[in-house]
Amino acid sequence: MSVTHEDVLAAAERIRGHVLRTPVLEIAPGVALKLEQLQHSGSFKVRGAFNRILSATLPEAGVIAASGGNHGLAVAYAARALGVRAEIFVPEVTSPVKVAGLRALGAEITQTGAIYAEAAEAAAKRAAETGALEVHAYDQPEVVAGQGTLGPELLEQTGGADTVLVAVGGGGLASGIALGVTGSGTRLVVVEPERIPTLHAALAAGRPVPVEVSGVAADALGASRVGEIAYRILSGAGVRSVLVSDEAIVAARRTLWAQHRIAAEHSGAAAFAALLSGAYVPEQGERVAVVICGANTDPATLSSG
Amino acid sequence: MSVTHEDVLAAAERIRGHVLRTPVLEIAPGVALKLEQLQHSGSFKVRGAFNRILSATLPEAGVIAASGGNHGLAVAYAARALGVRAEIFVPEVTSPVKVAGLRALGAEITQTGAIYAEAAEAAAKRAAETGALEVHAYDQPEVVAGQGTLGPELLEQTGGADTVLVAVGGGGLASGIALGVTGSGTRLVVVEPERIPTLHAALAAGRPVPVEVSGVAADALGASRVGEIAYRILSGAGVRSVLVSDEAIVAARRTLWAQHRIAAEHSGAAAFAALLSGAYVPEQGERVAVVICGANTDPATLSSG
Repeated sequence: MSVTHEDVLAAAERIRGHVLRTPVLEIAPGVALKLEQLQHSGSFKVRGAFNRILSATLPEAGVIAASGGNHGLAVAYAARALGVRAEIFVPEVTSPVKVAGLRALGAEITQTGAIYAEAAEAAAKRAAETGALEVHAYDQPEVVAGQGTLGPELLEQTGGADTVLVAVGGGGLASGIALGVTGSGTRLVVVEPERIPTLHAALAAGRPVPVEVSGVAADALGASRVGEIAYRILSGAGVRSVLVSDEAIVAARRTLWAQHRIAAEHSGAAAFAALLSGAYVPEQGERVAVVICGANTDPATLSSG
Repeated sequence: MSVTHEDVLAAAERIRGHVLRTPVLEIAPGVALKLEQLQHSGSFKVRGAFNRILSATLPEAGVIAASGGNHGLAVAYAARALGVRAEIFVPEVTSPVKVAGLRALGAEITQTGAIYAEAAEAAAKRAAETGALEVHAYDQPEVVAGQGTLGPELLEQTGGADTVLVAVGGGGLASGIALGVTGSGTRLVVVEPERIPTLHAALAAGRPVPVEVSGVAADALGASRVGEIAYRILSGAGVRSVLVSDEAIVAARRTLWAQHRIAAEHSGAAAFAALLSGAYVPEQGERVAVVICGANTDPATLSSG
């Protein structure tokens, strides 16, 4: 279950051409946004999905995944691109936009359970029956390595950044990036909603522990505990953990639209919220890169909430 | 009134740091989108506005502009950034989103006239009274040179493109880019809505002629004739002129959101519509860059129309 810097580099080779090299926008001197919300399927999740699927020998039954939405969309997208059958289990909290998107990608959908963990349990049971390849939303080595490909890409594009701000739900993206930027001198600041502090609680407890899941970003960051792999990597990497309020996330999302014409979902605006609200204050001259990680949202809400 | 390649390069120096270097996204091999809708004020227009204002000795009365909206937003943005007073005249067709944006930038607004030309006439009369510096929406050398800075920037970012597709209203952006890419071997394809064919009609007539203004992109591409400067440059540069239907523009805008999470206004999707609808068909291996030029739109309409 261990993942290394080299696994991230191998994943980058494996998924090249299947995912987009999303652009970076410098909105002010030293403040770069990594526009990963422009990625295929509307979030970073295709990086891990392609890496997991392309690393495996595929069974007849295809792939199966459980997801708050973005991971499901990513697995459905990758499966369609590779001509593989996909079954996606999503919790009932999932937004109609995301469910419609999944159906449009040709996946078979089962909507079950109040939160992510319950949908995941149902998917695992189904996988045991059919033999389909499980693609976990965050807690698999190939998934973490795939998400991590964003890290070296960002360093190349920015010519090195002092700090990367990234949101955490299950921790796949953050831990992948931590591995991906190992040795570069780039620090990681992981940002969580106050109402879903999976990593924050784990660091305090010394191990992944369940947390209450609520708030505006619950449909995408609503893992009830941080992944084992992510915890091992992030607790060892000395990352800084920062919490942001739902109000700060809403304000950041509104600013991304009003000032920058960037459409982001709430989870996608969480890392930017840390900067905008002052939850993280860069040093003088510090070069900061902020990952905008998803845009699977109803655009009608961009101005209002 | 003549403008040169060197004027574009000088403009790029002049406005550096005032405008964003907007990113490029390669959505498929050989198809790059220049995401100029992420520019300050939501469109390319700040390039010309900053260049015009920074080239002049400013009168007490500040600056004045007439605009279908985007140019007004850009002049208001640039004036605020430079601490200059701005008066903006906009036609009655201007969307409420754009008027609200203008007010938020601190500009004094006068909404008058059914179409752009009438608002422009009123602004010219007012400028004669107050002595304010007129910033034209397209037909001034400094404005054309400023918009043209997008051209060399795009060539740098793409490592050269065979073809640039760009929308035309008054022609400031297209003619500026034509000057900016002079000598690079890059061809220009200018795209207009069938219902506002200012350049198409001018090329047919041998001079700028008035056209009827209607359709989905009228609030941004609704100049009633192409600019004199733009006509001289574009008619001499051997550009290819392509028309697209309103239906094609609507479909392209919807695709930009649904497939790429890019929010564009109708005018901003016009160039992409030429590619998507087959109005322009690239050769095998041709590297195409498409300018997405504006996003000042009600996001609630991104999915629907």
